Amino acid sequence: MRGRFITLEGGEGSGKSTLLKELAARLEAAGKTVVCTREPGGTALAESVRNLVLHPPAGQHWSPMAEALLMNTARTDHLEKLIRPALERGDWVLCDRFADSTRVYQSVSGGVSEDVLKLMEGFVVGETRPDMTLVLDAPVEAAAERREARAGTADTFEARGHEFHEKVRAAFLRIAQKEPARCVLIDASRPVDEVANAAWTAVQERLDIKAPATT
Amino acid sequence: MRGRFITLEGGEGSGKSTLLKELAARLEAAGKTVVCTREPGGTALAESVRNLVLHPPAGQHWSPMAEALLMNTARTDHLEKLIRPALERGDWVLCDRFADSTRVYQSVSGGVSEDVLKLMEGFVVGETRPDMTLVLDAPVEAAAERREARAGTADTFEARGHEFHEKVRAAFLRIAQKEPARCVLIDASRPVDEVANAAWTAVQERLDIKAPATT
Repeated sequence: MRGRFITLEGGEGSGKSTLLKELAARLEAAGKTVVCTREPGGTALAESVRNLVLHPPAGQHWSPMAEALLMNTARTDHLEKLIRPALERGDWVLCDRFADSTRVYQSVSGGVSEDVLKLMEGFVVGETRPDMTLVLDAPVEAAAERREARAGTADTFEARGHEFHEKVRAAFLRIAQKEPARCVLIDASRPVDEVANAAWTAVQERLDIKAPATT
Repeated sequence: MRGRFITLEGGEGSGKSTLLKELAARLEAAGKTVVCTREPGGTALAESVRNLVLHPPAGQHWSPMAEALLMNTARTDHLEKLIRPALERGDWVLCDRFADSTRVYQSVSGGVSEDVLKLMEGFVVGETRPDMTLVLDAPVEAAAERREARAGTADTFEARGHEFHEKVRAAFLRIAQKEPARCVLIDASRPVDEVANAAWTAVQERLDIKAPATT
């Protein structure tokens, strides 16, 4: 039986990677084999593309079209070598960002048209659409505090201004509203354990997870 | 007045780069400002993509879809930063390989469907189609001798077998036959100066080049 494919989406600092770990633990406790991964990345080649897109040679900038093509390059390798084989084995795949992030980041700020992004998503993702997408939503100010609290330097996307992050938030909200059968909107401004409980309840309800049999 | 965009296509060892230099010299002698470039590559970012696609990390292989996306990533940067600005200045751009090479290499051997390649070419190339494409054709054996005579090691594409190169040759021939208004088929098995004369005659006729005024 094919496994399930769950993606986590939302702006930087919305708490996706923390939630991903918590969900993985709960799924494993429920007896599932879980593969945790991220985009861009997740395979050796996709990570090499991630490095190129997030850290272009000094003084150089990718256009939104080039970024969209690179994100889809990383995605196609990730799907071929990690996501599809895992789903075929029956594993559950939890992915920190997926195609919705490309729809959002490469179209905001007047980037690539939604039609072109949809075409690319169509031939790269094909039938491997997520069974469920958790869209983490938080006010831009709250997310900014989390981003600042992080170690390390800001990358190309994190370094952009307040207005950019507001557009990103609005674009994710639109996706959640447009595709309610796939997306669940999670209020990520709450404490971490409340966010995890809300997400876990949604996963159990939508993907029909029973508690493990007590023996 | 917009410049002219001429692409040179054909299998490895068909003599494209030799012809490109010869054509550039004749165009300059005819008073044109010429920009010589190549694909994948031609700009700093496109060259970084070229390096990634031709030399993936050890033990790793790109799928045809990933290759097609990378080639188009390099192309979009090349178009934005070099080709379109040069044409707008009125320069003549000579490019060693362009979109036809992606049509050929990423579709042969059962790679990406022609429909998907056409979609990508459409949104990446847009209106910047070549005014003229010289398709250099030579028997695979002759080209193999030229490839072997070259210094350096074979890359991902050069290293493939005879059957692959036969398919590549046939695919370029089909493009030349399908698009006679754009493409000129050049018999590249002849001596270098004969090839250059044939190509130069075609360029003069099709793009209406007058001999420079003698003063």
